[in-house]
Amino acid sequence: MKQKPVLHTVLSPRLLDIYDITNSVVVIIDVFRATSTIATALYNGAARVIPVDSVEQCIQIGKNTGGITAGERDGKIIPGLSYGNSPAEYPRSFIEGKTLVLTTTNGTRLLHMALNNGAAEVVTGSFPNLSAVCDHLVSQDKNVILGCSAWKDRFNLEDTLFAGAVIDEVKDHFTIHCDSSLMASNMYGLHKKDMFSFIRNTTHWHRLASYGLESDLEYCVTKDVANTLPFYKNGDLVVETV
Amino acid sequence: MKQKPVLHTVLSPRLLDIYDITNSVVVIIDVFRATSTIATALYNGAARVIPVDSVEQCIQIGKNTGGITAGERDGKIIPGLSYGNSPAEYPRSFIEGKTLVLTTTNGTRLLHMALNNGAAEVVTGSFPNLSAVCDHLVSQDKNVILGCSAWKDRFNLEDTLFAGAVIDEVKDHFTIHCDSSLMASNMYGLHKKDMFSFIRNTTHWHRLASYGLESDLEYCVTKDVANTLPFYKNGDLVVETV
Repeated sequence: MKQKPVLHTVLSPRLLDIYDITNSVVVIIDVFRATSTIATALYNGAARVIPVDSVEQCIQIGKNTGGITAGERDGKIIPGLSYGNSPAEYPRSFIEGKTLVLTTTNGTRLLHMALNNGAAEVVTGSFPNLSAVCDHLVSQDKNVILGCSAWKDRFNLEDTLFAGAVIDEVKDHFTIHCDSSLMASNMYGLHKKDMFSFIRNTTHWHRLASYGLESDLEYCVTKDVANTLPFYKNGDLVVETV
Repeated sequence: MKQKPVLHTVLSPRLLDIYDITNSVVVIIDVFRATSTIATALYNGAARVIPVDSVEQCIQIGKNTGGITAGERDGKIIPGLSYGNSPAEYPRSFIEGKTLVLTTTNGTRLLHMALNNGAAEVVTGSFPNLSAVCDHLVSQDKNVILGCSAWKDRFNLEDTLFAGAVIDEVKDHFTIHCDSSLMASNMYGLHKKDMFSFIRNTTHWHRLASYGLESDLEYCVTKDVANTLPFYKNGDLVVETV
């Protein structure tokens, strides 16, 4: 019988190098809010999203590409940039056909780590594009790393719950023997029916809700409302057209 | 109103330095099996347990102290040492009054990291001494780090479940705002009634059960069967007599 590919969940960027990720599809997960916003912008027709990890780079690449520069610190648009990190800022009427240059910290750092460690392929995932991610993973028949971006390297629950949601959908297609995945799957099973109330207990919710971002956060844990697959290619995240 | 001390759960030694552990009590958790065996040996009257991280050091300290040298690799006693890592090897009739020099990898490494990072106090915990650990934490009124030893830095469930069991007991006495603790608490709540069956799903169970250690492992997730507090003092783990 053909061996199934292996799936692992990595709970923090600090733990990524423990795993052999070569020949693997790495799913970058940053539910609050980078990978939710990326899916939304591309779903709404953005030509591409360029993820960058510094404000200077964001401004420079914005100039070079004519793209929209975006990034927040402490819930406010970073001085020198034009827009924020909210998925609600990127409806089709605004973003269609445009380049979005997005500054994020946790998600972008993990993405670059995955590339540097030899990932075969990098995609991004969050609840708004859950099904697109799962369909892709099943179709590829490659090993998978579900990479949680965490928060300043600290374990977080929203990324873990998304990992659990993916596992819930794809588990029949993979060999899964890792305690992180078992835990993520258990946590998702425990909370899939009370996600909107449970998620209010997480530290990241408290941090962001204090900036008045509740409706953003609820969107970020809503399934399949921006169901497209952001695929990393030569510095850009674009819609996968394989 | 007096501020409660803060409790955090650290899921892997790799994540320890993210937290400020000065002025904190650090609980070293290595359920399968180091901290279960340490509690058992001291409960049964061992004079002290000296945790060491190399075989050479174990042999040397064994010679210097006249202590019993112990350690396993792949379920077998390491050549040059005299006993293994099983709590069942250390009944009162054998260990009373003696020094046990115990080689472990994950737990000892985390213990030394905690000391190097300035922990105010280091104790060890596992299900066999759950109540002793909890009573001590509540009595100290200091910040607490529940430090999971993990397995080669990988997240593991047995240490996480013990952290959850501690939180279950002490939560009214601490400020707990960390996703790791919330997750550990949820996982323990989910499995406290089916611990013996659930624990069979963990990767570490599979690894050790293949060496025929099932009854050892069941003992290691049994509460309060060796209810004493191993306390680190000048290189030794001794019974806390504060």
